[in-house]
Amino acid sequence: MSTNLIDNDRTCPVGRALDVIGDRWSLLIVREAFDGVSRFGDFQRELGVARNILTDRLRKLVDAGILLSQPAADGSAYQAYVLTPSGESLFPIVVALRQWGEKHLFARGEKYSRLIDIGTGRPVPLMTPRTGDGRPLSASETRVKKVV
Amino acid sequence: MSTNLIDNDRTCPVGRALDVIGDRWSLLIVREAFDGVSRFGDFQRELGVARNILTDRLRKLVDAGILLSQPAADGSAYQAYVLTPSGESLFPIVVALRQWGEKHLFARGEKYSRLIDIGTGRPVPLMTPRTGDGRPLSASETRVKKVV
Repeated sequence: MSTNLIDNDRTCPVGRALDVIGDRWSLLIVREAFDGVSRFGDFQRELGVARNILTDRLRKLVDAGILLSQPAADGSAYQAYVLTPSGESLFPIVVALRQWGEKHLFARGEKYSRLIDIGTGRPVPLMTPRTGDGRPLSASETRVKKVV
Repeated sequence: MSTNLIDNDRTCPVGRALDVIGDRWSLLIVREAFDGVSRFGDFQRELGVARNILTDRLRKLVDAGILLSQPAADGSAYQAYVLTPSGESLFPIVVALRQWGEKHLFARGEKYSRLIDIGTGRPVPLMTPRTGDGRPLSASETRVKKVV
């Protein structure tokens, strides 16, 4: 492992993001949190995940500042896990995963859930990187400028 | 595990996407492929990943239609792994991971690599879901319409 590699890995925001949320369960928990799920038992039921894995991932998401653990709003004895502002800003990642999945992983005619713009009642349009003046940017029109 | 759960899981494009690429190494390999890395040895050196894991993930990415394995363009005996059109369309996911990491995982003054719009020489603007007429959409302005 060269010094160059270590530098690249430490200075790449993609790598650092994946250190925190590059795990299927973590991102599924975040997806459920966006859908309003907040209780341990509800995450467990929705995801069919083992208790020990769920406990571990919830703790990591809280430690990473993505979820906040607080008493449930209904005054019950339950803890509620809710997205922090940092967690809320994972929304584009969840949308990007969804839109890639919609396009590439369903057969013609196969049904899938839709992300709806409440204001219009229509599916959220395809999200893509854009220039400052709104033109779509493909990967080949970009380059990564590494830290030197 | 209720029938409802099984349905939700099978019909959620986020879950299905994570089944295919919800793994730190897979997404790091895709990131490297966007940076032009194509040879086994180069992925291995850049990522510091064990050979058996890299072999497994490359095979899965080829099987999923994300990478194509072909003879290297330089006529050498090496195989080159290149992004297919489906793989290229993972670009918004990589950009979303990067932009979240940039914002939340670096201390003030800490350096990180930048994704540059080659046309302007400036960093790619923050990508976000938008309405049809271009207004940014927050998570709370959307809802998931499940398959019934």
